[in-house]
Amino acid sequence: MSTALIVLAAGMGTRMNSDLPKVLHEIAGAPMLHHAIASGLSLEPEEVIVVAGHGAKQVSEAAADSFEGARIVIQAEQNGTAHAVGKASALLAQFEGDVIVLYGDTPFIRSETLAAMKAARDRHDVVVLGFEAADPGRYGRLVMDGEALERIVEFKDATEEERAITLCNSGVLCADRKVLFDLVAKVGNDNAAGEYYLTDVIALAQEAGLSAGAVTCPEEETMGVNSRQELARAEAEFQARARAEAMENGVTLVAPETVQFAHDTVIGRDTVIEPNVVFGPDVTIESGCRIRAFSHLEGCHVSRGGLIGPYARLRPGAELAEEVHIGNFVEVKASSIDQGAKINHLSYIGDAHVGEATNIGAGTITCNYDGVLKHRTEIGARAFIGSNTMLVAPVTIGDEAMTGSGSVITSDVEAGAMAIGRARQVTKPGMARKLMEYLRSKKAQKAE
Amino acid sequence: MSTALIVLAAGMGTRMNSDLPKVLHEIAGAPMLHHAIASGLSLEPEEVIVVAGHGAKQVSEAAADSFEGARIVIQAEQNGTAHAVGKASALLAQFEGDVIVLYGDTPFIRSETLAAMKAARDRHDVVVLGFEAADPGRYGRLVMDGEALERIVEFKDATEEERAITLCNSGVLCADRKVLFDLVAKVGNDNAAGEYYLTDVIALAQEAGLSAGAVTCPEEETMGVNSRQELARAEAEFQARARAEAMENGVTLVAPETVQFAHDTVIGRDTVIEPNVVFGPDVTIESGCRIRAFSHLEGCHVSRGGLIGPYARLRPGAELAEEVHIGNFVEVKASSIDQGAKINHLSYIGDAHVGEATNIGAGTITCNYDGVLKHRTEIGARAFIGSNTMLVAPVTIGDEAMTGSGSVITSDVEAGAMAIGRARQVTKPGMARKLMEYLRSKKAQKAE
Amino acid sequence: MSTALIVLAAGMGTRMNSDLPKVLHEIAGAPMLHHAIASGLSLEPEEVIVVAGHGAKQVSEAAADSFEGARIVIQAEQNGTAHAVGKASALLAQFEGDVIVLYGDTPFIRSETLAAMKAARDRHDVVVLGFEAADPGRYGRLVMDGEALERIVEFKDATEEERAITLCNSGVLCADRKVLFDLVAKVGNDNAAGEYYLTDVIALAQEAGLSAGAVTCPEEETMGVNSRQELARAEAEFQARARAEAMENGVTLVAPETVQFAHDTVIGRDTVIEPNVVFGPDVTIESGCRIRAFSHLEGCHVSRGGLIGPYARLRPGAELAEEVHIGNFVEVKASSIDQGAKINHLSYIGDAHVGEATNIGAGTITCNYDGVLKHRTEIGARAFIGSNTMLVAPVTIGDEAMTGSGSVITSDVEAGAMAIGRARQVTKPGMARKLMEYLRSKKAQKAE
Repeated sequence: MSTALIVLAAGMGTRMNSDLPKVLHEIAGAPMLHHAIASGLSLEPEEVIVVAGHGAKQVSEAAADSFEGARIVIQAEQNGTAHAVGKASALLAQFEGDVIVLYGDTPFIRSETLAAMKAARDRHDVVVLGFEAADPGRYGRLVMDGEALERIVEFKDATEEERAITLCNSGVLCADRKVLFDLVAKVGNDNAAGEYYLTDVIALAQEAGLSAGAVTCPEEETMGVNSRQELARAEAEFQARARAEAMENGVTLVAPETVQFAHDTVIGRDTVIEPNVVFGPDVTIESGCRIRAFSHLEGCHVSRGGLIGPYARLRPGAELAEEVHIGNFVEVKASSIDQGAKINHLSYIGDAHVGEATNIGAGTITCNYDGVLKHRTEIGARAFIGSNTMLVAPVTIGDEAMTGSGSVITSDVEAGAMAIGRARQVTKPGMARKLMEYLRSKKAQKAE
Repeated sequence: MSTALIVLAAGMGTRMNSDLPKVLHEIAGAPMLHHAIASGLSLEPEEVIVVAGHGAKQVSEAAADSFEGARIVIQAEQNGTAHAVGKASALLAQFEGDVIVLYGDTPFIRSETLAAMKAARDRHDVVVLGFEAADPGRYGRLVMDGEALERIVEFKDATEEERAITLCNSGVLCADRKVLFDLVAKVGNDNAAGEYYLTDVIALAQEAGLSAGAVTCPEEETMGVNSRQELARAEAEFQARARAEAMENGVTLVAPETVQFAHDTVIGRDTVIEPNVVFGPDVTIESGCRIRAFSHLEGCHVSRGGLIGPYARLRPGAELAEEVHIGNFVEVKASSIDQGAKINHLSYIGDAHVGEATNIGAGTITCNYDGVLKHRTEIGARAFIGSNTMLVAPVTIGDEAMTGSGSVITSDVEAGAMAIGRARQVTKPGMARKLMEYLRSKKAQKAE
Repeated sequence: MSTALIVLAAGMGTRMNSDLPKVLHEIAGAPMLHHAIASGLSLEPEEVIVVAGHGAKQVSEAAADSFEGARIVIQAEQNGTAHAVGKASALLAQFEGDVIVLYGDTPFIRSETLAAMKAARDRHDVVVLGFEAADPGRYGRLVMDGEALERIVEFKDATEEERAITLCNSGVLCADRKVLFDLVAKVGNDNAAGEYYLTDVIALAQEAGLSAGAVTCPEEETMGVNSRQELARAEAEFQARARAEAMENGVTLVAPETVQFAHDTVIGRDTVIEPNVVFGPDVTIESGCRIRAFSHLEGCHVSRGGLIGPYARLRPGAELAEEVHIGNFVEVKASSIDQGAKINHLSYIGDAHVGEATNIGAGTITCNYDGVLKHRTEIGARAFIGSNTMLVAPVTIGDEAMTGSGSVITSDVEAGAMAIGRARQVTKPGMARKLMEYLRSKKAQKAE
């Protein structure tokens, strides 16, 4: 059976106190909207419709980043969830199959949970996602009759007995496209807020002689985000899970609570992550690496045996082969570093290729930007770049070539050659003492 | 009604195990004494008297930092709180109004609480600050009769019934100057410790036919600090509150527990603070900024749209205009950076002005110190400072000027000019291979 | 009475999911095996026997690092703890005295606890270490008769009454060498796993008319590690204790939970450790220092009044005299820095000596490596090293000498002399503007 996702993402999120649309606030380096869409992608949906309102343009771009074929429909006025779902009806007019309604501010629903909802559709016309609440508070309660969902009762309408129920409504729902939109079309707004509630489709389904069922998931999955405090709590929840999973997979986290993962970080077995390491999106680390304290990695790959940091920054496009060492106060960007190369101190390597077993001296800088364009630096294998070498790109250093420390290299250096560009040292006896005396006397004069 | 503050700050704090007077240990970058004084400043006190003992000179300096007109009185022997308050009597002989007694090691009393005490003075001659204790333990209990404070009973003298009372005495107290000192003068030291207790003024007030009342505050406000563990706990309490407040105000803290605020940090809406950021005192950040991981800011201002870090250090006097980018391993001190300027890598900019849209290359250093004096560097707008440029101050670089990478700039560069100071590159074919062979043979000889 | 330690360290640690032998996983910068051995060293053991299996070679090296005379015996098949202890019997054939059996994956037993076990040997032939379990679960229970241990009962064999006992068996045991090995030789493997259990020696001792007793320790001491999650928990437990101890000793930890100690970190009174500081092994810091945020120290010594960081990295062999300042983005390795010297910005000082009150300018690098060998740099007292000086080692800079900023120093500089090596600045009017126009036009062409 084909699947379509409708992701509700129009809300303003007043309590976020932000100009950014709520669903674009990030968890683990990705917008909440991305998490919501990603959870449904394993069902290989034919259609992903995002219902946007506030900041629709930004929301649309983020949706496309998550799923290329995502389409946007605008809900100009926020008249409730059923109203929002209804907005998607035209775009799905030709679609045959099941529709799952998700929420852009509910980032943690697992793929397995959605698969279970799809499977339950064999037995029920409409399937609702429920969760067992530790403190059900004012959530709507699912009144079950065995496997079947009898009705959803709002807290304010519930009897004492119903209020004792702990299975609550998450709002996530799955139904055949035609069934869903027929029901949604019948939802009224005769309530205090004057809004059209998606929840009402269950009662309407029963009236129409359709069967409803519920699938249950742990409460964490249905965690919604309405404020920055809740955003921070959701982030913490994500991190706790990612840390536990990494350790389970054979990664050592010396101080797990100080390591920040991104949504897609992949780390190999027997890699050690020291305290205070931050991963941005799109990082893969092979096994047997050590990521030392205070390192910051994003968009990079570290191969087996890599030794990174402390204080190393790997930026997008840093591709490190096996046994590469990146040391302190070193930044690597858009560069591939071959096996066994070392860049140990105070360097900036950008838009470059560094050959196998090459040693880059302290203070080396690839001068990749001329004020207008960026240029590439090519360094061969087993080369030795002296400390504080300026490599003015575009420039090529051959295999086994050397540069003298303090040199500005503007022309290519052939393999095995030594390039040097510096003034001869001149030493003036007694001159330092005289200069100091002069400076001190000047200071004394000033002070008078 | 005028207000005078008496802040008791003479204690040695034996359990701190420190040479530093207890009240000078810091919370959120300011001495505890500062927090105590600051809480009273919103009452616009005419007089602030600090009773010092241990380390009186240092305490005196810290008091002056918090309130210019603060005066110090020395309590040479620590004979109890009433004795300490009595020491202030001479300095306040001419003062007409209310006196509030505060404690230098109780940093968290809120201004609103002190204002409530002042207000309660309309109805009572002496007003005491009480707190509802979760675990009242051995605190003195406030025995109330409706709004009126009947008496304060010490734990050891309390009946079972009195011990069940959870409203406890904080020691903070407000009374008319004359009333207070008359009562204090009557306090005796007929107790086990032979000390003069301020608490005794309540009983003396009652004896004298005066009325006493109590104002209540949450227990956190009256948190005292007696050891480094308690100092760490107070710091954590402060940080938790500051983080919650920032999020409430629309700031995103990706990992709140890794962000360290100072007592006076101000951050604008929709600014994102990444994990592991430390704020020293006197930082203001406008809205829409991003402070990346591992950044350290003190005494600086970041305007709207600033992008700071990772690994950026802004030191006192760094004034950043809108849309400025400060990148990794960059230190900025006592410098104003104009709109849109970029300093992205491995640089030290001190005592400088950088013009609008100027790009500072990696490894640039303002050589601001000649061994005796500091000098300024002036860089114009839309300039391009090549990588590893040494700017030997005092020096001026004009608008749209450029410097070649690796240059030492000692003379001014006019607008639109290019300055360069570097030796020509010489490349010696085959020389690197020969040198390596020689070095390896030398190593082999050594090893023999 | 002489003591021998047998440390069981053969287990594979399947749940660690690692190629590294379990006992070599580290806590606070030292292998768990080291912690286990170290706890017994205060008894001044004559013999330390480590029973290794998986990764015996690595385990052997780690054992030797902890105790020079440690000997290794191989347990090729893991047939139970009694079998493992039996393996040590040949090596201890000549030894007269007590044997204590410890576990390489139980790192937290205190020396005092082992001393109490030794002392209890006066009254009992075999002494077992028990702990009071909050949740005794499936641990073996110690059935006591006053001071005497009646028997150890496995959970599965225990009556309801016995299961109510909370005193559990840690497995740590002390007995006379001959007694122990005689008992161990009698242990059978008639059980579900077909293994030889050390616990069985208690029943065998009673059968042989020997007396058994138990010593009790807190549960934390007997914490074992079987997975990376438990490793992280053990690390956290160690850190919590180390932080509390430091504060007790008069060290201020601004944010204790962000400071990572090593097993042997020593910090003096009135030193302040700011947030986010990492200590590797072998660090000593005297009193009155300040270690600023984001600093990383290992194998170094900081003397009284040192000011380190933020972002300072002290590597092994960094020896700092009093009042030394090491600033941001500075790496110091294998160098002694004399009193009052300052290295404040963006420098790498390795294999060097820096004299008293010398100032090292920003961007200074000791070029200590020529691609094959490392060389030393010697800098005198009160010298002034200009910014971005390259010191090509081996090289000596005399007292009160200076170097010009941007110089590459290849020859020695005598005391009081000024050395400079840089090209003269050439300024070309209008050239920057022309170059920019050219680059922009080139870019525009490319874009077409």
